[in-house]
Amino acid sequence: MGVAMVGLRVLGIDPGLTRCGWGVVEGRPGARPTALGVGVVRTSPDLDLELRLLEVHTAVTALLREHRPAAVAIERVFHQNNKGTATGTAQAAGVAALAAAQADVPVAWHTPSEVKAAISGSGRADKEQVTLMVTRVLGLTTPPKPADAADALALAICHVWRAPAQQRLRVAALAGGIGAPVPAARTLPRWTGISR
Amino acid sequence: MGVAMVGLRVLGIDPGLTRCGWGVVEGRPGARPTALGVGVVRTSPDLDLELRLLEVHTAVTALLREHRPAAVAIERVFHQNNKGTATGTAQAAGVAALAAAQADVPVAWHTPSEVKAAISGSGRADKEQVTLMVTRVLGLTTPPKPADAADALALAICHVWRAPAQQRLRVAALAGGIGAPVPAARTLPRWTGISR
Repeated sequence: MGVAMVGLRVLGIDPGLTRCGWGVVEGRPGARPTALGVGVVRTSPDLDLELRLLEVHTAVTALLREHRPAAVAIERVFHQNNKGTATGTAQAAGVAALAAAQADVPVAWHTPSEVKAAISGSGRADKEQVTLMVTRVLGLTTPPKPADAADALALAICHVWRAPAQQRLRVAALAGGIGAPVPAARTLPRWTGISR
Repeated sequence: MGVAMVGLRVLGIDPGLTRCGWGVVEGRPGARPTALGVGVVRTSPDLDLELRLLEVHTAVTALLREHRPAAVAIERVFHQNNKGTATGTAQAAGVAALAAAQADVPVAWHTPSEVKAAISGSGRADKEQVTLMVTRVLGLTTPPKPADAADALALAICHVWRAPAQQRLRVAALAGGIGAPVPAARTLPRWTGISR
């Protein structure tokens, strides 16, 4: 197995109750990543909050089973905007993180400006620029829609590109011909783990 | 079976990551409720956020299995205070609500002022007054500690006392000698269900 095949598979989550974007990307730092899946989980505002959270949790659990990512990258939520929406967004992020913990997959939290800087070179890029760069970087023929889906892919790309420590360990293990599996991601340094 | 035995069993949750208070109360409007259990779930700040959420979710799931409440009452979280703490509190509330939904138990959200007004007659009661009233109302020999545990009992009492519609249906069903179980709580009117 060559080093070129070594890739980190990441599930990106742009949390939300009305629209929760998700995207699965595989790649390594300094290389063009590959998109493996993208979509949006929608829950009805007519449902009680706990049932909306149940739908998000169930969907993320299913995505983890289907795609078996090595990490989940979730947008770090802030509360500068609408209070009501921020609570639901934080809770959607919480149940997504819970699903990852239940599947024993490590979670990394990235701020919107970290993601924008990683994908476009500017922490102040607007939504159109992020979508454009995601489309180009992944070599897609059409831009992913809605913006929540593109943002989830951007989160996953950001995490793949910001993961040099884990990547070096994996490459070293494979390059050295070590047959045993690399240590579980959870035991590796959490270089981007901002959990509080 | 007499009407006097009819009671609504409620699990109250005062959400938090460092301390998540819980209390189980059984009773009916206008009567002195009974405390069936009280405690606090603590998670270490040294753990990653997703693992703390996993511990809260696992604990609430176990409490639902043990006590089989007819409803879960959770404090409605606002964001006027510390931003970082508010996010964790909202997420702890979210995974508690998720656990309830997974157990098919309806969730009601009560604001701190609703709870204070229900238990003490004043929406501006301080923590000491709430603890004192909870102790008196439940006929406890010692005040529940810490305050998070007392707050969780207050939430459960608030919900029991504010549940006249569901209570009347249950009483009517039993008083009329109807042998079949009353409809599942989820299908009854959600008189206090503030979910957004």
